[in-house]
Amino acid sequence: MNKPVLLGIDVGGTNLRLGVYRDQTLLWEARIPAHLAELFGQAASPAAATEALLELLARSIDEALAQEPAIAAVGIGFPGFIDPRSQRLSQSPNMPGLRDLDLVTPLRQHCQRPVRLENDALAAAYGEYVLAGLHPGSLIYVGLGTGVGGGLVVDGHPYPGEHGVAMEIGHIIVEAGGRLCGCGNRGCLEQYASASGVPRTYLERVPGALLPADQIAARAAQGDGAALAAFEQAGEALGQALAHILKVVDVGTVIIGGGLSLSWELFYPSLRRRLEQDLIPALRGRVQIRQSASQDRAGILGAAMLAGRLLAGPDQPASQPSVAREDS
Amino acid sequence: MNKPVLLGIDVGGTNLRLGVYRDQTLLWEARIPAHLAELFGQAASPAAATEALLELLARSIDEALAQEPAIAAVGIGFPGFIDPRSQRLSQSPNMPGLRDLDLVTPLRQHCQRPVRLENDALAAAYGEYVLAGLHPGSLIYVGLGTGVGGGLVVDGHPYPGEHGVAMEIGHIIVEAGGRLCGCGNRGCLEQYASASGVPRTYLERVPGALLPADQIAARAAQGDGAALAAFEQAGEALGQALAHILKVVDVGTVIIGGGLSLSWELFYPSLRRRLEQDLIPALRGRVQIRQSASQDRAGILGAAMLAGRLLAGPDQPASQPSVAREDS
Repeated sequence: MNKPVLLGIDVGGTNLRLGVYRDQTLLWEARIPAHLAELFGQAASPAAATEALLELLARSIDEALAQEPAIAAVGIGFPGFIDPRSQRLSQSPNMPGLRDLDLVTPLRQHCQRPVRLENDALAAAYGEYVLAGLHPGSLIYVGLGTGVGGGLVVDGHPYPGEHGVAMEIGHIIVEAGGRLCGCGNRGCLEQYASASGVPRTYLERVPGALLPADQIAARAAQGDGAALAAFEQAGEALGQALAHILKVVDVGTVIIGGGLSLSWELFYPSLRRRLEQDLIPALRGRVQIRQSASQDRAGILGAAMLAGRLLAGPDQPASQPSVAREDS
Repeated sequence: MNKPVLLGIDVGGTNLRLGVYRDQTLLWEARIPAHLAELFGQAASPAAATEALLELLARSIDEALAQEPAIAAVGIGFPGFIDPRSQRLSQSPNMPGLRDLDLVTPLRQHCQRPVRLENDALAAAYGEYVLAGLHPGSLIYVGLGTGVGGGLVVDGHPYPGEHGVAMEIGHIIVEAGGRLCGCGNRGCLEQYASASGVPRTYLERVPGALLPADQIAARAAQGDGAALAAFEQAGEALGQALAHILKVVDVGTVIIGGGLSLSWELFYPSLRRRLEQDLIPALRGRVQIRQSASQDRAGILGAAMLAGRLLAGPDQPASQPSVAREDS
């Protein structure tokens, strides 16, 4: 059977990434610069911002279609909460103007193809699931970017949660009374273990030195003690949050991606140490924690594969870990 | 269609509870005293303890069959980790002698009926799911007993986790460096929000006064400040843990049962306050937290209903929150 050609779009803060796939084979990819936060800051009204966003997405789809007219469905990973029933974008923490918005219908009408919208980290989780070849199986994906996002695949099925906010793990509180977070709470994971958190830690240790995370990583590589300590603290916070998460969902595999994951060797030792310490004995040593090997393509692959599920009809889960049928 | 008659057994620390159901109608119930921890403490060897446990379970099934010979399948909720693939009991934290044990095969051979073994809190979660009439839907159950257990139902399907330890939430750490727990860590939820945790808090405040939780509740009802504070701290710890949990699994409904839940009004206000404070804004006010109304029968009902799923063949999930099929 000929597999359908699928377009995946990953909407990021600074660009849109596009990938056209047949099965897991990447046929074409592109990156379209787009500073969404600025686009929203500059728009005259939320309606105008929405219009600009839709135009950007429509233009991206057109560009892909010009290359690959055979595209049968479009999947979009978007940084926001997607209502699992209506497919509406209920809100996007980084684009506060967007609320309860139907992006799917206008895009479907524009391109005359099925369109699926999912949370970006959930799309990446599904992409990692496909790449991992666990069939069936459960995994979580943790994306370490400016914030920390997460996605959960349960027995082969993306799990968005009842309100589309499952795996909103950047806001798990790891430090009581800790750093103030944009969500209004204090001590959230993403204040420590992200591309914005690591610089805050470094700044606390080296007053005046507000550097981007990759420069701090470069300093750590040269033996800078404060830089090493900043990544160690990030790993510690992640290990602590992962222990909470695994006690709830008990998956066998955790994949960590996003920009900060490139500094793997700087935070993984403290992550693993703290995780094993905090886990219950029955789980110690039994959870695989892996750096993403998708070269940052899990999001576009996952979005494309999720779109492909639309073609198969209403989303049907495969079997849960099944209890063998009794033969007596 | 005539619904099958099903036996559910809930194995507790001090007794076995049995219930025979047709659909949700309880036809017969019984309670068989059994001090399992003592039984295991007194047994000459793990093999002898296993033998005694199997004999106890077989005798219970026989008693139910004598009353209701039409029983078509038997479900057992057991306080331990059940491997979701093999149905073996991998371990039981309160009965350390039991490890990697097949209870299902000998019981099935004994009673000549399908037998299903699940974690007790997962069985209770499934019972609550059936009672709540959410079809489909997701919920978590929290059981406040001597320890704190939990169960997760995802879109109508019990979720045991990859290693059978999903929702092992009694060991979510809520207090860094806090009270030493049997698991070896410090500050676990069940050291604060359980029938053993509340007495510890009370004892800290009133030296020498080691009372059972129900007596502390009685004192709280009379206005004893230390007793009120002990329950308030339990609620606070629970609210904190629930916020962690909901950021991971985002279910719409949380049901709280177990002995300590009878003191609902003593811990619910602080639970709710802390939960709302710790949640992300998108979830505030959107999660139902309810006291179990099952009169402690969720465990036997759930075990019976899970056994019924065996009769329907390999466990098949219903639809996930489905993405509407595109019609373009």
